[in-house]
Amino acid sequence: MTTRDDRFKKAATDLGYSFDGEIKIGGNYVALVRDGDTIYISGQVPRVGNDIVVTGRVGAAVDLQRAQLAAKICVMRALALLQRSVGTLDNVRAILRITVFMQCTPEFTQQSEVADGASELLFRILGDAGAHTRTSVGVQQLPKNASVEIDLIAAAMQVTPEKT
Amino acid sequence: MTTRDDRFKKAATDLGYSFDGEIKIGGNYVALVRDGDTIYISGQVPRVGNDIVVTGRVGAAVDLQRAQLAAKICVMRALALLQRSVGTLDNVRAILRITVFMQCTPEFTQQSEVADGASELLFRILGDAGAHTRTSVGVQQLPKNASVEIDLIAAAMQVTPEKT
Amino acid sequence: MTTRDDRFKKAATDLGYSFDGEIKIGGNYVALVRDGDTIYISGQVPRVGNDIVVTGRVGAAVDLQRAQLAAKICVMRALALLQRSVGTLDNVRAILRITVFMQCTPEFTQQSEVADGASELLFRILGDAGAHTRTSVGVQQLPKNASVEIDLIAAAMQVTPEKT
Repeated sequence: MTTRDDRFKKAATDLGYSFDGEIKIGGNYVALVRDGDTIYISGQVPRVGNDIVVTGRVGAAVDLQRAQLAAKICVMRALALLQRSVGTLDNVRAILRITVFMQCTPEFTQQSEVADGASELLFRILGDAGAHTRTSVGVQQLPKNASVEIDLIAAAMQVTPEKT
Repeated sequence: MTTRDDRFKKAATDLGYSFDGEIKIGGNYVALVRDGDTIYISGQVPRVGNDIVVTGRVGAAVDLQRAQLAAKICVMRALALLQRSVGTLDNVRAILRITVFMQCTPEFTQQSEVADGASELLFRILGDAGAHTRTSVGVQQLPKNASVEIDLIAAAMQVTPEKT
Repeated sequence: MTTRDDRFKKAATDLGYSFDGEIKIGGNYVALVRDGDTIYISGQVPRVGNDIVVTGRVGAAVDLQRAQLAAKICVMRALALLQRSVGTLDNVRAILRITVFMQCTPEFTQQSEVADGASELLFRILGDAGAHTRTSVGVQQLPKNASVEIDLIAAAMQVTPEKT
């Protein structure tokens, strides 16, 4: 039987990226705040190491498939942060909310389809605990010309000691 | 004395739409997640049944009044979801937050006035429990060319058993 | 030793604005909702008294430094609201999340740098309790042509009696 951590590792391999290093963020804040069992994660862009992997406007330079890849990388970063905070993804009780922002053309209306890249990965890795509410929005621009930015609120198992 | 559920039904009649059917959502996620007494609702577009009732850009094809109608339909959907989750709107303790996104022209600055359509309905149906915090934002584009998208965080009465 | 309230007052003096008056909001909702220890604050624009101090598009009429000023004023308003709700900023346990929206040009990609104006102020005034998660987004337009809008979720000390 595969664990969630196994499935996380396999998803990283499938994407061809490693999420083992530091999860860098771009400013004067923190990547994760835990308040009781509720965990808030900062907006994640599709950065791996020092590089923003997917940049540019969805619907123009960036097509749907590539935007979905961006969404997946954002979620993998969020999961990597969660995993480090609660020890193992098995200690994630629920994903409460994700908000998926993407820079897009005025005509691009497949925001839900882009966000499905993120949602599908949450279900695949976390199973039922990956069921989440979602808001998908097409915006003007994102930090460092990233194509997608995703933030997330999760709930930890109540038995988990606080590590952050 | 009218109940909140009565007022919800009257608001639906006034709008001329029914919210009795399935509240369809557009992707691979869930419409509502409950965590203790806190209830997260996914971004709602002005969909009734299979149709997005109000599409297009606010400030161009869509005027203020029609954008307010869109905001009202989004909120009615959220209330319908809440009602099903906690049994009756009388079991809603508070609306903690709504975020109101609308696709608009670069020059359109009446985001608050559009959102007032949603806020007014929350007060009218829920009374004091409808008092909420709000963020209103004009964006580039929304799923399926919807004019408005609203997500919501609510609190259920603590005596309410969890049904989701 | 300076208190957080002292540092708040000094920051207001440094900015050259007073946050002693009513914190006006622009619609049919409330500025702050408290649910247990969690406090939600409505989206704040850079308004002081009746005036929106910083309006216009970041990357065009509004440069980075002025956008950072706007972000600071938004955060000062949120802190003023928090202070009134829990009596003193010393009763703020944590800032859980801020979301920083700014209207910008399609080419403007320094969303993080704008948001740093807000983040730096939270750290300066609240110390460690000012550590927060953050999402920064460039959007089409904001209420009343405001350049920046920031909403916030905070946690109060558990000993604090509810005042709202």
